[in-house]
Amino acid sequence: MDSTFDPTFDPTASRGQPMTRAAAPPAVDFARYAEVARGKIEIALASWLTSKAKETAALTPEARAPIEAAFDLARRGGKRLRAVLAGCTYEGFRGEGGADAVLMAGVALELLQVYLLIHDDWMDGDELRRGGPSVPAMMRAQFSSRDLADASAILAGDYAAGLALDALLSVPCAPGRVAKAAHELARVMQDVVAGQLLDVHASHESARLLTERQADVECMHALKTASYTVRAPVLIGARLAGASDPTCRVLEAFAEPLGVAFQLRDDVLGTFGDPRATGKPAWSDLRQGKRTALVAAAAEDAEAASFLRVLGDADAEVAELEALATYLTRSGVRARVEARIDALLSEARAALDSPLVPETARLVLEGSIVALGRRER
Amino acid sequence: MDSTFDPTFDPTASRGQPMTRAAAPPAVDFARYAEVARGKIEIALASWLTSKAKETAALTPEARAPIEAAFDLARRGGKRLRAVLAGCTYEGFRGEGGADAVLMAGVALELLQVYLLIHDDWMDGDELRRGGPSVPAMMRAQFSSRDLADASAILAGDYAAGLALDALLSVPCAPGRVAKAAHELARVMQDVVAGQLLDVHASHESARLLTERQADVECMHALKTASYTVRAPVLIGARLAGASDPTCRVLEAFAEPLGVAFQLRDDVLGTFGDPRATGKPAWSDLRQGKRTALVAAAAEDAEAASFLRVLGDADAEVAELEALATYLTRSGVRARVEARIDALLSEARAALDSPLVPETARLVLEGSIVALGRRER
Repeated sequence: MDSTFDPTFDPTASRGQPMTRAAAPPAVDFARYAEVARGKIEIALASWLTSKAKETAALTPEARAPIEAAFDLARRGGKRLRAVLAGCTYEGFRGEGGADAVLMAGVALELLQVYLLIHDDWMDGDELRRGGPSVPAMMRAQFSSRDLADASAILAGDYAAGLALDALLSVPCAPGRVAKAAHELARVMQDVVAGQLLDVHASHESARLLTERQADVECMHALKTASYTVRAPVLIGARLAGASDPTCRVLEAFAEPLGVAFQLRDDVLGTFGDPRATGKPAWSDLRQGKRTALVAAAAEDAEAASFLRVLGDADAEVAELEALATYLTRSGVRARVEARIDALLSEARAALDSPLVPETARLVLEGSIVALGRRER
Repeated sequence: MDSTFDPTFDPTASRGQPMTRAAAPPAVDFARYAEVARGKIEIALASWLTSKAKETAALTPEARAPIEAAFDLARRGGKRLRAVLAGCTYEGFRGEGGADAVLMAGVALELLQVYLLIHDDWMDGDELRRGGPSVPAMMRAQFSSRDLADASAILAGDYAAGLALDALLSVPCAPGRVAKAAHELARVMQDVVAGQLLDVHASHESARLLTERQADVECMHALKTASYTVRAPVLIGARLAGASDPTCRVLEAFAEPLGVAFQLRDDVLGTFGDPRATGKPAWSDLRQGKRTALVAAAAEDAEAASFLRVLGDADAEVAELEALATYLTRSGVRARVEARIDALLSEARAALDSPLVPETARLVLEGSIVALGRRER
């Protein structure tokens, strides 16, 4: 068990940042919940994919292959954090039957992510995903025509999008709640695409990298990551439990800073994390020239230019990358990003201080702050 | 006004095919309804896209461009047949407030089609769509990087998919009905992709063209076209009006043959239609080597091989294409496809003979048989 899910792990112990709610027990409930919930989600997902596979049995083997590749990626999932978050929010808001009643919402969120990952990996040319080949790489290995492989990958993603909606509409809650949850799905489908558009267009203008503003990177993170990593899971869970519009606005004020902090943490781990823990190749963010908060923070520093020129150089020497990482720490850039994460997590925590959030929900969502914002992998 | 919408046009007059319900007044109600409904749908779509455009105003101009291209394609729509069909089905099933109450379902179907057309045009390399450049072509004209143009086109389609769901969930009907309608959307999103997978994979195996079976082509048409052209519009309209599961099964038995006939009609028009009426370049289906019912029917004919070798040759001489078209008529291939269309339309009509379909719905859906199955453009 890593520190994220260690009930004895106290994120406040090693940091100077004050907590707005010092007395709250942090990760215990969420960590215990996540352990159990993850197993149930795996079973629900596997069972649903098996039933869905029967529906495609009449297709030709070539036409079925992209769908099976999407299923394979879905099964290779990691922490199932988004699905866990939806279930625990539902339970926190005292949804009938507890989280087990809305496992299909978790399945939907996993399939939404599969859709997004497939299209992202195709756009970014990423070969690896979740410890195996990405879906576009699987398609290229299977079909000799590059056009056919590309079309197959896009269609595999499109299929997963339809599956995600199908799964969410299969949740056995009151239809009015299901329709509102589906509306959150429609919203996140738009936001993630807008965030990805910001990302791919800015990434193609390499000259912009050094004038990148922190606010722009955070806007992209909010749309591209926070929306589907925190906001959609939390709001779908809350909507299914019957949470009101004003309550959902409170939850948005919680979800957005937590989601952005999640991605900033990803940015830090992508450069400073242990590749054995993160599963990402060492230095991959820097080699790919990703638009991270570290780069944006460094852009404000006059000394940065000479170090940042290796960004996006796939063949950069390890020594150069180490020099960049050292510079990012020595110059205080890393500390500035870590401080920003702390501020965002405090903001998320403060949002939960609302009479609209019942104590059970507050406890479990506070636990999620640690799991998502302080993770080491 | 073309013959499709001419109330005096009698499709039975010039053909030998008997109608199973000779006394039914054919296109009158549907044609009148379609004329009025189309105008209302244009207004609802334009108004919704204007409000959606405000939501993306904060994006950079480059990130906004693909979304605007999708909006542009949506505005350039043609007959709005799918939206009309949803509204008239709702009204036929005596949905409260009539078709005007479910205009957003029509908007959703138009945006679903925009999503599908964008991804299809990207896969097929089609430059033209609805009398203007396709979205992928617009992106290539705007962005010099081919990768960036491709990613932008795919994301424009993805965005439209989210918008389609958003629009459908905005229909002001009882949430239980809206959720069921959205489930039809989820289903069609899967079916269309499965059909497109069958198409792109079979198209890449050119050797298969001459062994194509009619049944395979119809299976593809059912998934790829019938599903979103007839089944989804009719079932979404019926679900929003509160139609029961058994009634929806009757409507499926109506929708599938009509939808396949619609596409077979498209196949015939793609080779024999007047380019000024269809808006398609002359011979485009043959030059692109499309998997049409004509090709499948010809494949059963021993004499076909020498004519079919020009299929898929973008630079084929007009004389060769004319010889192929003449052969398709002379050999009886075209007549076989036309007879199949007639049989499918009779099957659709027969399905409406059910006590579960109220007279108002039967009349308007019979009208749609003429509009979709007998059209000249």
